[in-house]
Amino acid sequence: MTMARDTSEAIRAATNGQHDAHGAAMSSNSEKVARYLEVIQKLVTAWMKEGENDRTPVAKWSDSKSLRENVRLRVHEGDGVGDEALFEAMSEVLDNSVNPWTGRFLDKLYAAPQPLGVASETLLAAINANAHVMSASPMLCLAEECCASAFARLCGWDEARSDGLTMPGGSSSNTLAVQTALSTLFPFFHTDGVLGIGQELANRGLQGRSAAACRPLIFTSEQSHYSLDKAAIACGLGLSSVVKVACDDRGRMDPKELELLLSAAFSKENTASSPRGFPFFVNATSGSTVMGSFDQLDEIAAVCRKQPHPVWLHVDASWGGPVLFSQSARKLMSGIEAADSMAINPHKLLNIPLQCSFALFRNGNALDNNALDAPYLFHGRDSTSKEQKDAERKLARRENPALMAYGCGRRGDALKMYLAWLSAGSVGFARHVERGMSLAREIVDLIRTPAYASRLELGPASASDEDDDGPAFLQVCFRPALPQGQSFKEEQERSEILSKATRHVYETLKVRKRFAVDFAPLPRGIGDFIRLVTHPSTTVENLRDLVEQVAVIGEEYLSREG
Amino acid sequence: MTMARDTSEAIRAATNGQHDAHGAAMSSNSEKVARYLEVIQKLVTAWMKEGENDRTPVAKWSDSKSLRENVRLRVHEGDGVGDEALFEAMSEVLDNSVNPWTGRFLDKLYAAPQPLGVASETLLAAINANAHVMSASPMLCLAEECCASAFARLCGWDEARSDGLTMPGGSSSNTLAVQTALSTLFPFFHTDGVLGIGQELANRGLQGRSAAACRPLIFTSEQSHYSLDKAAIACGLGLSSVVKVACDDRGRMDPKELELLLSAAFSKENTASSPRGFPFFVNATSGSTVMGSFDQLDEIAAVCRKQPHPVWLHVDASWGGPVLFSQSARKLMSGIEAADSMAINPHKLLNIPLQCSFALFRNGNALDNNALDAPYLFHGRDSTSKEQKDAERKLARRENPALMAYGCGRRGDALKMYLAWLSAGSVGFARHVERGMSLAREIVDLIRTPAYASRLELGPASASDEDDDGPAFLQVCFRPALPQGQSFKEEQERSEILSKATRHVYETLKVRKRFAVDFAPLPRGIGDFIRLVTHPSTTVENLRDLVEQVAVIGEEYLSREG
Repeated sequence: MTMARDTSEAIRAATNGQHDAHGAAMSSNSEKVARYLEVIQKLVTAWMKEGENDRTPVAKWSDSKSLRENVRLRVHEGDGVGDEALFEAMSEVLDNSVNPWTGRFLDKLYAAPQPLGVASETLLAAINANAHVMSASPMLCLAEECCASAFARLCGWDEARSDGLTMPGGSSSNTLAVQTALSTLFPFFHTDGVLGIGQELANRGLQGRSAAACRPLIFTSEQSHYSLDKAAIACGLGLSSVVKVACDDRGRMDPKELELLLSAAFSKENTASSPRGFPFFVNATSGSTVMGSFDQLDEIAAVCRKQPHPVWLHVDASWGGPVLFSQSARKLMSGIEAADSMAINPHKLLNIPLQCSFALFRNGNALDNNALDAPYLFHGRDSTSKEQKDAERKLARRENPALMAYGCGRRGDALKMYLAWLSAGSVGFARHVERGMSLAREIVDLIRTPAYASRLELGPASASDEDDDGPAFLQVCFRPALPQGQSFKEEQERSEILSKATRHVYETLKVRKRFAVDFAPLPRGIGDFIRLVTHPSTTVENLRDLVEQVAVIGEEYLSREG
Repeated sequence: MTMARDTSEAIRAATNGQHDAHGAAMSSNSEKVARYLEVIQKLVTAWMKEGENDRTPVAKWSDSKSLRENVRLRVHEGDGVGDEALFEAMSEVLDNSVNPWTGRFLDKLYAAPQPLGVASETLLAAINANAHVMSASPMLCLAEECCASAFARLCGWDEARSDGLTMPGGSSSNTLAVQTALSTLFPFFHTDGVLGIGQELANRGLQGRSAAACRPLIFTSEQSHYSLDKAAIACGLGLSSVVKVACDDRGRMDPKELELLLSAAFSKENTASSPRGFPFFVNATSGSTVMGSFDQLDEIAAVCRKQPHPVWLHVDASWGGPVLFSQSARKLMSGIEAADSMAINPHKLLNIPLQCSFALFRNGNALDNNALDAPYLFHGRDSTSKEQKDAERKLARRENPALMAYGCGRRGDALKMYLAWLSAGSVGFARHVERGMSLAREIVDLIRTPAYASRLELGPASASDEDDDGPAFLQVCFRPALPQGQSFKEEQERSEILSKATRHVYETLKVRKRFAVDFAPLPRGIGDFIRLVTHPSTTVENLRDLVEQVAVIGEEYLSREG
């Protein structure tokens, strides 16, 4: 990045200020922060402006080997460097980073943050308060409470009874749901862990079950996020505790299959093919990572209700949750009112800066089961009791939010969401979500036009409506199509050549550096597809350009290799 | 907070810019960020400046009841608000927050951030890259690698073999160490969880052990952080898996007691009083939360080495780790070279903004045991293999840092440490740590002068040196002393009245709003003490003022109630 003149001047002013006879020793923290922010504002906005230039590459390096050859970071083991060298280091960081402000970073479920978000992070850094106890971070804790309540209203939950907190990412939110379900459904979990569950089931008169049949089981779809598997390992259950439920063509969990698997597991007559264990947790996905599909919460909730023992229903809405803002799209999550918990990541679709994820609980009292006292920290702890009314219990609980989770210190990420929600309003968020969804539909329509219909192949539709074959959400999965006249006897052979073409497109786009876009395998062995995410902030021109590039690169590859 | 004139002007300029005929629709993201940062710079530095005024209270509210009565946050469920209202909301947040820039927030192990840190967070927000894979966040991943290597050198570990990553807080870093030890020492943990460990021990020829004696055990001192207990619950072990080792008078784990407990647990002749289970993890603390004590790593490492089965040695240096920078203080962590892992939180003593915590591993290959493939995400995954050299394995592993931990997305918190390390140099960090330690000694010396010796009682010394009775680190624990001539027959009665006096001092200080300082119970039933943390950025004048206030408030209380 060539430093703009005003940036250089700001740096000079900032560093001069430090070195004059009085400045260095005398300058207060507020003066230092003022100077640093003045420079950083110029550095950052110059880099953003560069990103807004259509010819700027989305990333300078297409592989980490070249990056490592050209950039060498090292810390100073002796004395520190002056501010001028420091600002150069910052420029080097910006210069070699992926630039999301190009609007051509379509690689992940997050994109460039909202402009307001950059300011919110600065505010959070200046406050620098730990959201573990309210006395240290009163406003951050109130912002969390306020957002958690507003989300509860969106879900149709009782606001006084519900509760929630921010976690460092969707995986953490999902893991907290698993832990809370374990500590709520198996009170021995707290003291005896997974080893205590067999004894507890025996105490409940379920002693007919073998030890293996006492393994706590999580049910989740084949298309769900791998964080459910990781949560099972992290919580000491292991992958054997995860039962994968098959999906329909649209990538949605099959509720009938779920029902069969649950009954088989609960049945005393466990057969060899039954899941070996005791079901306690069903995870449904609202907005899957690859296809953007939404599990049918209504039907899944009905299945859970039918079981002979309580089953915790969690909804991983890390990606799709914001549909709740939209009157037209919220039907995709119809049934959420019956869920026990939900994860939602405003840092994905709502463009809050990384990270901002909420773990929300319909019955906040369940979170008390995670508590462990630490007398050095939790002084204001009015112990919550079952006799208290929900609202009183919540008020007491919210003095010490760290008691709800398994970490101690926490960033006050909710502040970013609170300010964004003020600024956009629920109506603004709804428009944002709807724009992303309509972009996806527009791109699917484009791929179906004669210009592309024979050159590109769309992945299976993820639409929720039976007579619709469009995208349910913001992902468009597509890849080069076989040239006309060319065919393969074996479906597997076809899948392999098209997967290769897809990966070739991916690699070529990476080298061209105009777009960052990802690929992923689709279910049922049909192979890899480009997964385009139509973030609401993208322009149709860029998306069209990308589609054209995929078509051309694919054609060229398949005519050579096909 | 009364908004300064230049802040109001900046807001007017920023909001005018949005509403003029062309501005609103035309303004680019870079222009919006520039405007937001201009205002936020003024808001934040005005608030900091206010904090720097000696008469400004450390917090506006002494309890959350008053806060709740006076501040009502709500989100906008209709349309959003304009920028002017948004900036007012930001002012409201600042105005009602604890102000760490007063230098009188001495309540926790963190304090005001470095001025540079505020700018680093802004930079991180603008980059907004996820540190899960290097292709999305090349520079953030390199910064992490660079800092992890530099920490490894500080520990005396082989740099090519070691590895590490930032986690959202010390609790998370400690938990990752427990999980990594489980997945490394018990390969079945990954698939079968805690339930697989009994089988695995049987496979190893340890079938003489009863089921209960197969429970994996964590050993940690009575004075260690409660996050070890929470980690045990979170990982499905339960509190029964945590064996608390007694401490000496200085708050350090007793290595002989540890040795006895380990042998008893490993012995086949488990008696009723032996820990029931199979030891796998010892946590030593470098800088305990209340007393600031340092466990003797050399001796503990020697005990671990003697055991008949491998025992993972983790060091929770979340608070005390920065002594490694200081030639004079690093002896407090002598033995760290033999540890398997270490947690260190630069967001505590080094004043990096919340959060910044590193989980570091002497043998980085152990982190591969946490990996779980996600084909949609980890494309560049050259699978690591045991045949590869350490450096090659590390290079492959670092393409996808998310594989090392149990979450997926991660903030690039290492960038803040990288920039701070550049700016201060290791020498600057050493000076910083030494200043904090010498302040603590100065305050202890002050309390021992005739002016205070009879009015205040110091907690037991945490010094590491047998012939020293000073503080080992930055905490000074003290409380009002019984008035001369007054005494109690029962030690318990004495402890109770002095604990009450301490809590009265704490409450009074809260109401006065000049200082925020915490209290905590000290071991062996001696009751509560004020825990003062002498952050390096505090002034001696403020610390002296606080000591005087504690003495006066305590005297007044004890003469009335004693």
